[in-house]
Amino acid sequence: MDTKQAGEKIFSRDNILILCHQNPDGDTLGSGFALLYALWNAGKAARLECADPVPKSFAFLAPGREMPRFEPEFIVAVDIADLQLFGKGLERYRDRVDLCIDHHPSNTRYAAHTCLDAGAGATAEVILQLLRDAGQPVTEEIANCVYTGLCTDTGCFRYSNVTPRTLRMAADMLEAGADAAGINRRMFETKSQSRIAIEKDVLNTVRYYFGGRCALIYITREMLAATGADETELDGVSALPRQIEGVEAGVTLREKEGGFKVSLRTAEYLDASLLCGRMGGGGHARAAGCFLEGPLEQCIARVVKEVGEALDARDEAAEKGTL
Amino acid sequence: MDTKQAGEKIFSRDNILILCHQNPDGDTLGSGFALLYALWNAGKAARLECADPVPKSFAFLAPGREMPRFEPEFIVAVDIADLQLFGKGLERYRDRVDLCIDHHPSNTRYAAHTCLDAGAGATAEVILQLLRDAGQPVTEEIANCVYTGLCTDTGCFRYSNVTPRTLRMAADMLEAGADAAGINRRMFETKSQSRIAIEKDVLNTVRYYFGGRCALIYITREMLAATGADETELDGVSALPRQIEGVEAGVTLREKEGGFKVSLRTAEYLDASLLCGRMGGGGHARAAGCFLEGPLEQCIARVVKEVGEALDARDEAAEKGTL
Repeated sequence: MDTKQAGEKIFSRDNILILCHQNPDGDTLGSGFALLYALWNAGKAARLECADPVPKSFAFLAPGREMPRFEPEFIVAVDIADLQLFGKGLERYRDRVDLCIDHHPSNTRYAAHTCLDAGAGATAEVILQLLRDAGQPVTEEIANCVYTGLCTDTGCFRYSNVTPRTLRMAADMLEAGADAAGINRRMFETKSQSRIAIEKDVLNTVRYYFGGRCALIYITREMLAATGADETELDGVSALPRQIEGVEAGVTLREKEGGFKVSLRTAEYLDASLLCGRMGGGGHARAAGCFLEGPLEQCIARVVKEVGEALDARDEAAEKGTL
Repeated sequence: MDTKQAGEKIFSRDNILILCHQNPDGDTLGSGFALLYALWNAGKAARLECADPVPKSFAFLAPGREMPRFEPEFIVAVDIADLQLFGKGLERYRDRVDLCIDHHPSNTRYAAHTCLDAGAGATAEVILQLLRDAGQPVTEEIANCVYTGLCTDTGCFRYSNVTPRTLRMAADMLEAGADAAGINRRMFETKSQSRIAIEKDVLNTVRYYFGGRCALIYITREMLAATGADETELDGVSALPRQIEGVEAGVTLREKEGGFKVSLRTAEYLDASLLCGRMGGGGHARAAGCFLEGPLEQCIARVVKEVGEALDARDEAAEKGTL
């Protein structure tokens, strides 16, 4: 179903319930609230539900007034690729979703109708197109919501999912009054004290091997407990080793029950999948993982040995010209 | 002089020398090389000069072949706001600049003609407009140069200098073949080992005061020497304290001869200029600085005392309702 049909479907109904995914991010909330405001502006009864509370950092997207109560006649899921992402609080709606609006190619088509644009950098792109096709005005409030979805799902327009349309829609949202600089500051330049603390601890673990061709960090449960950092605050941190100049193999170890989860990113030539395969894991050529049992230093020694052997093999092949 | 006139001026001449500013960044080099390639494509003899070598991270913008030699008949400075930014290597051209293309409102108008658009987020915007007005094709090579200028001068489209035009031009560059995701990765997701090392050291200095309303970091000369980090690698690091959630006063101390340079950023209500004024410095309401003589702990104690008094005064006024 395309955005024109989806828009006609939604705006011809009333008492509309919008669902966002659990652990909500900027795209599910930005998309959901944009649709909510458009429906309110069109005189419809509509509300938004999410299994988890709206995080403080996204509170500025939420309306200042209470959501209306009603028995939903039409249920729309936004940015929810899979029923598992509904979360406990929304379980009762799982079999009743009339329409799902999404951009994840992995969408499981659980809804009666699905409006999916896998080429969109964010679901907010699909929502904006839908509002335009439905002839709904894009207010300043809606522009802030759509912009938040666009910028959060693309790492502020850094990632490879950005298309010319993403950037042009962002331009249009600026013209419609979105406070882009303010939103970017909240989203990308504000760090919690616990994030600062875990960053510090993790940077203290950086080790280099093989002339800087391998960089390794680790995160223990003790570090997490001591800093009070949560999973979402680890997102940027664990990407660190592969961001270091000259590093071919970036290794992150995360303590789990009985051992360490190893994640390996490679830059140009090492096959991460093969390498992790030798330790009982697997994955892709540039990103793979495995689980190693035992204490920290033993796990580190094992990974470093495997990386060293892979680098040696590569160097030998390069010398012999058999690459 | 507008971009149409500037374009006519450049493309009607031959043997054109393009100048970039010292310590070259992505905008001066992106703008300069974009213009260079366009002139070459138009069959002109042209070369680019800079007082400093092209940093490794921008080497991909430079041509694979040598610059042609000639006695310049027309000299264009790009993104150089002031003669002081020419650097030693370009001193001989200071009085001979025919045209300056820039976006800095502070431009000192040292050239015979100036094409300045202070509303542009980057000089690359002005260059692209000029090439369009001159009817010059935007090749993939030029698109990469322009995109690099746009993204580096705007913090990858984060800052308040981004306009709808900036984003639309970036969209057009993607369509013209710019490798945006690859450029963003090089520019924003690659860190040197020395940058990692100084980040670690600086994070180890973070101190909080007054329930987290003040955060302070310091950078000593010993830290710089030990990590091998240079000034450019400190850019992001010194912004850290004001990025921390809940912080009203973010303080950075940098060791200089005989004491510490203090820079203070405030979030919402403390007057940084007033506060630094009490320590012999000054600046703006949200960003100010001063110099304090003496050893580290003495300087820290002084700043913290002043911040504490300013916070107390503010709290008292808030209680009395005399704000």
